Amino acid sequence: MSRVDGAGDGYVVGVDFGTLSGRALVVRVRDGAELGTAVHEYRDAVISAALPGGRPLPPDWALQNPDDYRDVLRHAVPAAVAAAGVDPARIVGIGIDFTACTVLPTLADGTPLCEVPELRDRPHSWVKLWKHHAAQPHADRVNALAHERREPWIGRYGGKISAEWQFAKGLQILAEDPEVYRRADRFIEAADWIVWELCGVETRNVCTAGYKGIRQDGHYPSADFLAALDPGFADFVTKLDGPLLPLGARAGTLTARAAAWTGLPEGIAVAAGNVDAHVTAASAQAVRPGRMVAIMGTSTCHVVNGTHPAEVAGMCGVVDGGISPGAWGYEAGQSGVGDIFGWFVANAAPAGVDSHERLTELAAAQPVGAHGLVALDWWNGNRSLLVNHDLSGMIVGLTLATRPQDVYRALLESTAYGTRMIIEAFADAGVAVDDLVIAGGLTTNELLMQIYADVTRRPLNIIASAQGPALGSAIHAAVAAGAYPTIHEASEAMGRVHEAVYRPDPDRARAYDALYAEYRALHDHFGRGGDDVMLRLRAIRNAAVDAAARNQTELEVVG
Amino acid sequence: MSRVDGAGDGYVVGVDFGTLSGRALVVRVRDGAELGTAVHEYRDAVISAALPGGRPLPPDWALQNPDDYRDVLRHAVPAAVAAAGVDPARIVGIGIDFTACTVLPTLADGTPLCEVPELRDRPHSWVKLWKHHAAQPHADRVNALAHERREPWIGRYGGKISAEWQFAKGLQILAEDPEVYRRADRFIEAADWIVWELCGVETRNVCTAGYKGIRQDGHYPSADFLAALDPGFADFVTKLDGPLLPLGARAGTLTARAAAWTGLPEGIAVAAGNVDAHVTAASAQAVRPGRMVAIMGTSTCHVVNGTHPAEVAGMCGVVDGGISPGAWGYEAGQSGVGDIFGWFVANAAPAGVDSHERLTELAAAQPVGAHGLVALDWWNGNRSLLVNHDLSGMIVGLTLATRPQDVYRALLESTAYGTRMIIEAFADAGVAVDDLVIAGGLTTNELLMQIYADVTRRPLNIIASAQGPALGSAIHAAVAAGAYPTIHEASEAMGRVHEAVYRPDPDRARAYDALYAEYRALHDHFGRGGDDVMLRLRAIRNAAVDAAARNQTELEVVG
Repeated sequence: MSRVDGAGDGYVVGVDFGTLSGRALVVRVRDGAELGTAVHEYRDAVISAALPGGRPLPPDWALQNPDDYRDVLRHAVPAAVAAAGVDPARIVGIGIDFTACTVLPTLADGTPLCEVPELRDRPHSWVKLWKHHAAQPHADRVNALAHERREPWIGRYGGKISAEWQFAKGLQILAEDPEVYRRADRFIEAADWIVWELCGVETRNVCTAGYKGIRQDGHYPSADFLAALDPGFADFVTKLDGPLLPLGARAGTLTARAAAWTGLPEGIAVAAGNVDAHVTAASAQAVRPGRMVAIMGTSTCHVVNGTHPAEVAGMCGVVDGGISPGAWGYEAGQSGVGDIFGWFVANAAPAGVDSHERLTELAAAQPVGAHGLVALDWWNGNRSLLVNHDLSGMIVGLTLATRPQDVYRALLESTAYGTRMIIEAFADAGVAVDDLVIAGGLTTNELLMQIYADVTRRPLNIIASAQGPALGSAIHAAVAAGAYPTIHEASEAMGRVHEAVYRPDPDRARAYDALYAEYRALHDHFGRGGDDVMLRLRAIRNAAVDAAARNQTELEVVG
Repeated sequence: MSRVDGAGDGYVVGVDFGTLSGRALVVRVRDGAELGTAVHEYRDAVISAALPGGRPLPPDWALQNPDDYRDVLRHAVPAAVAAAGVDPARIVGIGIDFTACTVLPTLADGTPLCEVPELRDRPHSWVKLWKHHAAQPHADRVNALAHERREPWIGRYGGKISAEWQFAKGLQILAEDPEVYRRADRFIEAADWIVWELCGVETRNVCTAGYKGIRQDGHYPSADFLAALDPGFADFVTKLDGPLLPLGARAGTLTARAAAWTGLPEGIAVAAGNVDAHVTAASAQAVRPGRMVAIMGTSTCHVVNGTHPAEVAGMCGVVDGGISPGAWGYEAGQSGVGDIFGWFVANAAPAGVDSHERLTELAAAQPVGAHGLVALDWWNGNRSLLVNHDLSGMIVGLTLATRPQDVYRALLESTAYGTRMIIEAFADAGVAVDDLVIAGGLTTNELLMQIYADVTRRPLNIIASAQGPALGSAIHAAVAAGAYPTIHEASEAMGRVHEAVYRPDPDRARAYDALYAEYRALHDHFGRGGDDVMLRLRAIRNAAVDAAARNQTELEVVG
């Protein structure tokens, strides 16, 4: 480990902007010690029913108010510094991470369009949160055209870009509110916008530009391609392009205005923006190729560095320097994990056993395979190898003797099988996954962790920080401040992980191989065209619900 | 309707011997009015853990004490007569029905072997209840040899005899306790044994002889076939054969001893024995060909008369005169129905909605298909078209939005799809099923009944008696007493049914066609070799449980 003299005795601040709140964390540069933290909840949270002014929104919309992000700087940062009890003068840098793709249109000076008075009542002028899902038809058009034209970049995204990403969301604005599209001088990730707010300089980070902005091999999609989508869309890249920074770079220095908000010294280093999952690789000491980080919460995000670019089936994307400079950063995901366990407790667990703790305790007391069940973990669709949100969950093997803890355990296992499918897809594409570091809220479930070790046949390391993203942002701040020469070295010094907490048991791993083979066969049958029953059931469901809603409306009109 | 003069003003008694108790019902011959009833619970109930003397039993055994049956005559019959307030002297006949195949070995005079002091401690000397399932290997041998030798009778049983039936249970005795086998002069259905107790004359009824005793076209399986199973088994039919009576026949008259037990007049007619499901056809006014009775409880039994013998895939059997003389009686079944709904309420319904009433109320408030689910109703295996007890249940289409009432409704529907599969198998074999009469405990669930009408596209008639089997036995008693010339005419006069209570709704029926198509595709995929995952999961489960039990035993030995 090398460290630049002088900065080592200082402190840095990491700020993690989540879906409902932002968290600030004060960290010692020398060893990553976490000294104080504070959370600020967004006042407008997720705007999905109506704009703050009252204008109703269509289904599948999810917006945010950018001033809520500034409030995190105003409230959480000073509170964290106060909690840490350190002299603000000794803080040498600030770094942030954000949900992504969370994106907003702004004027040339960075003013969000929703803060321009005459545009405040226009839904498309607000921040589109990552889970704004109303742009699916536009993503479909991008994908179809990319394959038709054999665009080289589509393979970098497992063959499909998401409706959550910049181009789908941008196309939706153009199609539905051309004036807002025209007024948007800039179209920028919230991660980069908040950095702009901090340092007064507009930059773009390679991570979101690559994963969410389809920037590959130095280029965004061509104007020719964009014009083929819509002649009015040909100029879209001019709204995105800007000074592109590698991760860990210094985007600028803290302005007087931002210093006043945060109570931090004017002029300290501000790190380039980053994404919550990717920045966790630094805090989990997992930037070396072959060590995959799985951030397990309601869903799971997987990031792993590789030595070369490869096309992995169904992955979210591969980006040069997307996790740390000098490596190819891969991202994959499972769209339902903790969400499924939570669904079970709320909707399928009888009184007396309706808690994760009790179900886990009961589920642990049985040998592998004794429940006779296999489930497909697609309660929230599949965004892993199959990338189809219309797939659904299934359970097979139910008998009159099946107990709640049996189904619960089968659900835990199904998500582990889903992770193994992803790991094997990486291996098949020549991208090594030697071991896993688990981060996120599910790390406390020991049964779940052991199942993951047994099913994946890989040792499981557990992140030792409860604030993985904020610590990761602090590490990036330390690099931006010049305290460490690289993210790798800063991660070694400031990150923390419990190594090999869970090791695969050979007998259980062997037993799981047989069950995993069943999972894989069902996965391929229901996910790859053997039987599209899930898609047909979804269509039947939607038609039935729509017809009922239409009848209801007619009744109301008549009434 | 014709009626023999004189007997019409009298009364008859029907006695229904169930799994845990026996019920007597006093009925007016003229119109079937039910005047009084009483239940007596068996003291020894189902003997599955240890004999009354303390000797432990292996797994899957289920025995009964024949004296419990006599107690029903001693207690329930006089209590029912007293409740009816009729003069016992005006009772002209008694009829019974029984669970089947429930069978016992006796001496030549009808003494059960378990009442022979030196045999009382021998498990094989007791009554084997229908759900004694320890004879499966013997059934497998019978089936394999029957197909090998192309025995003509195997087609009359959908290609498979059950482990519950006489030949499997008899073979088990021979294999495991040859002395008891040798001492058994007679091997007799409990239905026929209790008739023997009532009238002092041994008879056999065509119903159990055909469905449970493999008697077809005037013959039991040949001595040659039986010797090929085991040379010692060649004489088995000599233990079964005896005066064979059509249903509704008079087996004899009430003995002085039985008159003393029951308080009924000595010398009144005793009807030939019968089976609970089959006798319900009489009380449900469903003896005419094409009207199927479905007795819906924990499981469902279907019986329907046809005009000719046909081979129906997976049916339990077809027997000439097996429901009523002059027609071919077909039997089919679903091994889990109410049991599955009960499993759901006990094991998968969260607090607040964990009752059939509440779940039904919530489930009713949605259009067909709106839950997006299809289930295979094999929680207790499949004894319908597939005849495989190792199959298991599955649900597909689960999402984070799936509610308990959605799954509950999908389970109700899955059993309706199972019924439609059976009806279509009959239709494919040229056996008409024009409409259905539903009997049993599930008739009170209006949502379930409407789903069955919509799914099967057939009007649903509901039996109007709460005591279908006992009323059916009373009807047979009236025929045996000469009050009516045939079961058909007695059924018309004494049975009762609410006609067309539920009619299929064309829109819902059309919507269900699409879901049923999904069910059928899954049925064939998982049940007919497309994917034998259920069988493999069962094998994995059994191996895991066995290994754990062995480890436990070793630990105890070491400890």
